[in-house]
Amino acid sequence: MKLGRLNHIGVAVPSMADAIAYYRDVMGAQLITEPFDMPAQGVKVAFVNTPDAHGELSGTQIELIEAIPLPDGSASPIAGFIAKNPAGGQHHLCYEVEDIEAAREWFTAQGKRILGPTRIGAHGTPIFFLHPKDMLGQLTEIMETPKGHH
Amino acid sequence: MKLGRLNHIGVAVPSMADAIAYYRDVMGAQLITEPFDMPAQGVKVAFVNTPDAHGELSGTQIELIEAIPLPDGSASPIAGFIAKNPAGGQHHLCYEVEDIEAAREWFTAQGKRILGPTRIGAHGTPIFFLHPKDMLGQLTEIMETPKGHH
Repeated sequence: MKLGRLNHIGVAVPSMADAIAYYRDVMGAQLITEPFDMPAQGVKVAFVNTPDAHGELSGTQIELIEAIPLPDGSASPIAGFIAKNPAGGQHHLCYEVEDIEAAREWFTAQGKRILGPTRIGAHGTPIFFLHPKDMLGQLTEIMETPKGHH
Repeated sequence: MKLGRLNHIGVAVPSMADAIAYYRDVMGAQLITEPFDMPAQGVKVAFVNTPDAHGELSGTQIELIEAIPLPDGSASPIAGFIAKNPAGGQHHLCYEVEDIEAAREWFTAQGKRILGPTRIGAHGTPIFFLHPKDMLGQLTEIMETPKGHH
């Protein structure tokens, strides 16, 4: 496998509104996407776009993640993370791959534990997560590069 | 202030050799810089280059950080992090700014705690760190963009 683009860094936040205000007013973000819910994952997400080496807003994104209840009313998996990190904190790293099935086979062959089935992620392309204990302590998301992007 | 490029993600690792092997052999990194010591900070560092949206290796870097003893023989600040996170883990985020002094004044005016004086960082340009409790739970490094880079 060839290391892909670092698509985003997931950051769990106690309040989406406060996190957006922080990135806009303190850090000076020029573009933050409108937050949207992913109910099946128990999260609300929004993306902070960052400039790349060319000054375009296509650098690695910051994914802001807020807990929302799961459809059955139980707590979001993010709620436990925030309980341990009340100010928020870095939650995961996400790398792009060209072919999600090939990547799944690759990591399985490397003996890395994949957390659940491949599903559609926040960018609308297939993703899966790898166990942090197998990945240098980092919860790692692998996502297929959106079509038309490189 | 205007949000700058996400220069790198700092990842503390228990073993530099193992971390380099992981990024090369499991993640497929094409370019990892030679590790070097920063004795005054009690760290050995190496950078994993990632591709950007144009396919060039100028995306956000992963900074691998291993603890080495401080010059007075005391433990590295990274040693405590690894004691809590034995597999390794995400340690900090680093954003670029055009002018380090202006950035220092900006964050001070925002009431953010700056950790120590401005010093020369691993890329040879001035840097400082901000207190994670003031920065959405993220230890945040601010670095001046290397000359000739944008």
